Amino acid sequence: MQAKSTHHIAVAVNDVDEALATYEQLFGAVLDHRETVPEQGVDAAMVTLGGNQIELLGATGPDTPVGKFLAKRGPGIHHIAFEVDDIRASLAELAAKGVTLIDEKPRRGLHGLEVAFIHPENTYGVLYELVAYA
Amino acid sequence: MQAKSTHHIAVAVNDVDEALATYEQLFGAVLDHRETVPEQGVDAAMVTLGGNQIELLGATGPDTPVGKFLAKRGPGIHHIAFEVDDIRASLAELAAKGVTLIDEKPRRGLHGLEVAFIHPENTYGVLYELVAYA
Repeated sequence: MQAKSTHHIAVAVNDVDEALATYEQLFGAVLDHRETVPEQGVDAAMVTLGGNQIELLGATGPDTPVGKFLAKRGPGIHHIAFEVDDIRASLAELAAKGVTLIDEKPRRGLHGLEVAFIHPENTYGVLYELVAYA
Repeated sequence: MQAKSTHHIAVAVNDVDEALATYEQLFGAVLDHRETVPEQGVDAAMVTLGGNQIELLGATGPDTPVGKFLAKRGPGIHHIAFEVDDIRASLAELAAKGVTLIDEKPRRGLHGLEVAFIHPENTYGVLYELVAYA
């Protein structure tokens, strides 16, 4: 697959509003978008920083994927998202190369984007997300 | 401080050559630069991927910072580097805002760049590096 661009880098945080204020104050980050996606259990603030988007990613509760990540590992980088043109073709290509997919089919992410995650066991512990504009 | 750009995202790996081959094969990453910096205990391959540079970061031995990170946490995202115009002014500004610096003065990184790390305790568990062209 070909990563068209880096769509965002996600940082898991316990308190999105507090993290947003810190990133604005320390790094001059600029808020682009704030959204809660209840079906994914996330509350997110997307900021522009250093030419990339950083997603400050909170959990809507402890039993969500991000809630469990925070409980186990604490705040920190959660995933890197690449934008691709054809998410289904990219997933099929990765699967054919033996990569374990978390999402075999894309699902809905922020902004109504199509998103799918790749298992970090194949990518040196890094959780990658593929993102495509539907 | 103002992050001019995201200089690179570093991923700690046990075997840089193997990780490089995997990133080329799975994601179409392109190798830009391969360098060992003995005084920092790192062996690194910088690749272009999704419009960013990803640094596949290995250790020259177990008693190096990256060697200890790998022993403790395993492979995974190690740090994010922002390019700044004036690294000394940026460090002074962050210190004035109460941020703990790992490097109070810049030191030499890959390509002879000036680099300095910020302690992750102030940035939600994320290790940030500032990078400037000397």
